[in-house]
Amino acid sequence: MTHAYTDAERAAIYKVIAERRDMRHFLPTPIAPDMLQRLLTAAHHAPSVGLMQPWRFIRISDPNLRQRMHALVSAERLETAEAIGKQEDSARKQAFLALKVEGILACGECLVVTLSDNREAHIFGRRTLPEMDIASVSCAIQNLWLAARAEGIGMGWVSMFDPAALSALLGLPPDAKPVAILCLGYVPAFYEAPMLEQTGWRQARPLADMLMENGWQPSPAHDAKESP
Amino acid sequence: MTHAYTDAERAAIYKVIAERRDMRHFLPTPIAPDMLQRLLTAAHHAPSVGLMQPWRFIRISDPNLRQRMHALVSAERLETAEAIGKQEDSARKQAFLALKVEGILACGECLVVTLSDNREAHIFGRRTLPEMDIASVSCAIQNLWLAARAEGIGMGWVSMFDPAALSALLGLPPDAKPVAILCLGYVPAFYEAPMLEQTGWRQARPLADMLMENGWQPSPAHDAKESP
Repeated sequence: MTHAYTDAERAAIYKVIAERRDMRHFLPTPIAPDMLQRLLTAAHHAPSVGLMQPWRFIRISDPNLRQRMHALVSAERLETAEAIGKQEDSARKQAFLALKVEGILACGECLVVTLSDNREAHIFGRRTLPEMDIASVSCAIQNLWLAARAEGIGMGWVSMFDPAALSALLGLPPDAKPVAILCLGYVPAFYEAPMLEQTGWRQARPLADMLMENGWQPSPAHDAKESP
Repeated sequence: MTHAYTDAERAAIYKVIAERRDMRHFLPTPIAPDMLQRLLTAAHHAPSVGLMQPWRFIRISDPNLRQRMHALVSAERLETAEAIGKQEDSARKQAFLALKVEGILACGECLVVTLSDNREAHIFGRRTLPEMDIASVSCAIQNLWLAARAEGIGMGWVSMFDPAALSALLGLPPDAKPVAILCLGYVPAFYEAPMLEQTGWRQARPLADMLMENGWQPSPAHDAKESP
């Protein structure tokens, strides 16, 4: 007895995993409410440690809020550029500043994803690894990303913001925390490869570099650097 | 021009998202090496902040290592039970102890997933949110989970261990960190609902409880408790 899906089903699943992209370029076409609901339902099917379901989704429909979120991201982009310039060099800083890092004002839908409040009540599976809450939320976001790609909708996960400032803007309780600004929208085209590869920012490394057996095996390949 | 997949493809993707389960019960059937490679390749297609690819996979083929990992999880299970007993009550502690929390000795393949070393070199997208590394690793694990379900293979994510002890056991460098013991294997059946619901440990809450608009909306539903 097998529980495997059909060849066609498996092919579709491997295809969406391979073709999902972190998108920055969007068309203004709006996303229908039932489509958004379908994508959020996919996210909500995610696993969560101890079934705590720590994800919260804040839909941003107020254009003024979008503008202020965009300003927060623009400010952090400059801080990041400074930090990269200090750690590497000014050429790298300029290369970073040439990258498009978000599509907040252009995308059809903008969501903020937060970790829930009252997470300390949840001990199961996170007594020694409290960060399992963001792990669960990330699985939900990955579900949303894959469902969106299948629907022909692009998504970008923006993490370039000061979480305290975004919390203040959205009135989060002190024990909740924003971890993502998700830009969702129809796109002119999906990137054929990750945008950071296409722009020459960084080259992805092969799976073989990430595999070990029965213990850590130090290798030059495992010693990742920011530059390729 | 649409980039949407066909109805059949989309149906397969929503199906696997809905039918994926955190598994604890396995058959001893081994997993073929090319199948394992396919699943790891799906994981490796994950998004990562600044393309840092912070995931590392350690395949555990040594039965003695499995035994020692099982012992680590058993020890943390008792610590977790104590902590739940203290925070809630002894009935809840007993209910926790009645749950099956791992399948390390029974599963066909056992992987440890770690955050890479040298992560501080990566500033892009994590200057203010350093936890974006575990977010990327979690997206990789979710890809693996979905691909495994489509192949008829169950997976369980065990996070009940002392990370320092597991690091020592596997010889991790001080700046790497284990975040998952993944149990992978063929299963007698996939749970029809999350095992923690089936056993009455906790009831999942509906998506509507997780949605807000333009800011945090406090509600009794958002105030999650460990008990339903």
